[in-house]
Amino acid sequence: MIKIGVCGFGTVGQSFVDHVLAYQDKIIENCGREICISIIADRSIEKKKFKSESIQFTSDILSVNNSDCDVIVELIGGTDIAYDLVKSAILKKKSVITANKALIAEKGDELLALSKENNTYIGYEASVAGAIPIINTLKHNMLNESIISLSGIINGTCNYILDQMSSERKGFKEALNSAQELGYAEADPTFDIGGFDAAHKISILSMIAFEIPSPYENIHIEGIESIDSMDIDYANELGYKIKHIATARSNNSLIECKVHPALINKKNILSKIDGVMNAVRTVGDKFGTSLLYGHGAGGAATASAVVSNIIDYCIHVDRNVKNISNSIAVHRKDLVTIEDTFNQYYLRMFANDVPGVMANITSTLAKHKISIEAVTQHEPLENEKLIPIVMITNSVVFKDMLSAIKKIESMDNIVGKVNLIRVFNDD
Amino acid sequence: MIKIGVCGFGTVGQSFVDHVLAYQDKIIENCGREICISIIADRSIEKKKFKSESIQFTSDILSVNNSDCDVIVELIGGTDIAYDLVKSAILKKKSVITANKALIAEKGDELLALSKENNTYIGYEASVAGAIPIINTLKHNMLNESIISLSGIINGTCNYILDQMSSERKGFKEALNSAQELGYAEADPTFDIGGFDAAHKISILSMIAFEIPSPYENIHIEGIESIDSMDIDYANELGYKIKHIATARSNNSLIECKVHPALINKKNILSKIDGVMNAVRTVGDKFGTSLLYGHGAGGAATASAVVSNIIDYCIHVDRNVKNISNSIAVHRKDLVTIEDTFNQYYLRMFANDVPGVMANITSTLAKHKISIEAVTQHEPLENEKLIPIVMITNSVVFKDMLSAIKKIESMDNIVGKVNLIRVFNDD
Repeated sequence: MIKIGVCGFGTVGQSFVDHVLAYQDKIIENCGREICISIIADRSIEKKKFKSESIQFTSDILSVNNSDCDVIVELIGGTDIAYDLVKSAILKKKSVITANKALIAEKGDELLALSKENNTYIGYEASVAGAIPIINTLKHNMLNESIISLSGIINGTCNYILDQMSSERKGFKEALNSAQELGYAEADPTFDIGGFDAAHKISILSMIAFEIPSPYENIHIEGIESIDSMDIDYANELGYKIKHIATARSNNSLIECKVHPALINKKNILSKIDGVMNAVRTVGDKFGTSLLYGHGAGGAATASAVVSNIIDYCIHVDRNVKNISNSIAVHRKDLVTIEDTFNQYYLRMFANDVPGVMANITSTLAKHKISIEAVTQHEPLENEKLIPIVMITNSVVFKDMLSAIKKIESMDNIVGKVNLIRVFNDD
Repeated sequence: MIKIGVCGFGTVGQSFVDHVLAYQDKIIENCGREICISIIADRSIEKKKFKSESIQFTSDILSVNNSDCDVIVELIGGTDIAYDLVKSAILKKKSVITANKALIAEKGDELLALSKENNTYIGYEASVAGAIPIINTLKHNMLNESIISLSGIINGTCNYILDQMSSERKGFKEALNSAQELGYAEADPTFDIGGFDAAHKISILSMIAFEIPSPYENIHIEGIESIDSMDIDYANELGYKIKHIATARSNNSLIECKVHPALINKKNILSKIDGVMNAVRTVGDKFGTSLLYGHGAGGAATASAVVSNIIDYCIHVDRNVKNISNSIAVHRKDLVTIEDTFNQYYLRMFANDVPGVMANITSTLAKHKISIEAVTQHEPLENEKLIPIVMITNSVVFKDMLSAIKKIESMDNIVGKVNLIRVFNDD
């Protein structure tokens, strides 16, 4: 009999317990052994309506480690008590299943190594993109070859907001408000729209795909706050959608990992991921291009991913061999600094309508060896005299781009800042 | 040391050997034990250029079962010698990995049961949709809940032809010719364009998702031969793409499984699967909607899926418990006969340009309790007098639709047959 201790009984915790109870027979058959939920811990356990005679309830989360459960299911979130709980569980030879992206991205190097040392299982399928089976696929189907790149639309809040700005022509604030009303964005949305959530997730995927320590501390993170409706329109005219994307790629001894909005060609399937849906695209040496699409959040979808790790735990116990599936960092690869990354760029700027402006911009770019792949000069916006100029450049190193932009912004007839958005390069 | 015998040394066989040799260290690490290719068998082995001192070569395929290899990798195809080989391998307690969809769809019930009886492993990830990890995902992540439906664009030849007809405005024959030139279609393309290949694949997915015997013998199969360029244009006007789709769904005690062309709403991500790419969409009780997209064919992609089964084999050996992952039929569910299935339909017919034709058609449909969701009457085609009429109906049972069509086709001013295409219903 495998005894499960559930820590954190919010939306995902309750969905997890519902799922296990609804499909207990099926799960037992798949596990090849009996399972039960033996204890549920939540700081506000007294406020929860769920009752069961066979389950113990406690508000003392850390006390679960003193119970006789075999597996801790950590659904608390954050890196405070969740970290203490998981670390002490591993030290007590308990296995852990967690949906906590912050924990794995920020403390995963230590916790995965500790878990390996103690030959316990640690599963975190639900920590990236909810029900999308990307971790199992990376650790299983894609394990036997080199991964070239990962790119994900892995923050539902950002995707929803950008999609609403594009399909419903809402402004950023209005789109954020709808997201908040629908429960797709938190009251303080910074963590999502600032790109930090996506950064946690791409860090975890990079750890697995490239067998490196978590790159989280050092990756370049941009949110979607600087995306204006006009950029969405101009990108659309040029054949692109704007999405918030997290990318990672391995170049010989270096890893490039970054999170930012990007123009994605409408022909690329990543441009078709609408609403709150998530998708992860992986390019491998042998399997080619793969995309996994699904619900990246929500109680039932996230809980479904947590449940899938129970099977992995049983396999771990059955095999009783070294902890093969818990990839820990074997390569120490440096991260490319953002100034040294190459990209095509979308540039949008405002100019006074005087002769020679375009010539000045283009010659400045030419001096920096930047060529222009597309350019559109628009009518002035309503009630404005300034002319919007939009360009897409060839692929150049970021530091050259920054230096060119600095020059352009200092020109007499350029007003305000140049808005730069990367163009996603299809491999 | 795990010894692998490769049977069939065509494109996939050669890609498999290349993959194993290129990534041998990685695979060994992932398996937790040594592996090697010990023997390669192909009826035309003498024509193959590949040489290796450590591998034995033979043209006698069945002799591989007399060698000391532990796992047979069957890449021959078909149900003749491949069936004899796999059956005798299992009886000799050898495990089997196969990319053979015909074998699993037509002989899988017997072979999976035999494999379970003998506690051998049988893996067939590569048999459906090449590198798309749909079988692992169904057997692992989606295993612990009910699968509501499966829908797949799982024949690259059909998808390429329909995509060329749509995006390049080619006629059917011209599109088929390009497919043949590019190696996407066989010289005799019947098996692909007639829908039989997709039927094999959806049968295998249904076996796993619904734990039923293979439905292959009884499923309704339509190919894409009846799709005309004008249908692609008319569908496009109404907001749809035409794709060849295989679907399966479980309704209480019945299974509905069919293969046919369908109009897919352009808002549905399945409509965006272009070229030769494949995708499988799954709807689950808990995980919601999932879509896995990737290369459905090609040597390297298919071989990558074969390699992933080596890991499964090692897990099977390590666990040494009952053969959990080899789903065999536990439910005996009947198939819904095609006449009893419900769908929306696209109807396209030609009428003489006389008053009252439309009234006759619509009243005939009304008598059959079929309502019309959209109708367009087009200009006559060039050099023709007949008027094309296009309709999309509500969801009705197929037998009523057939009976209404029979009446419509018997009308004086309707010329020729009514072309009927199902509309894919999003769940």
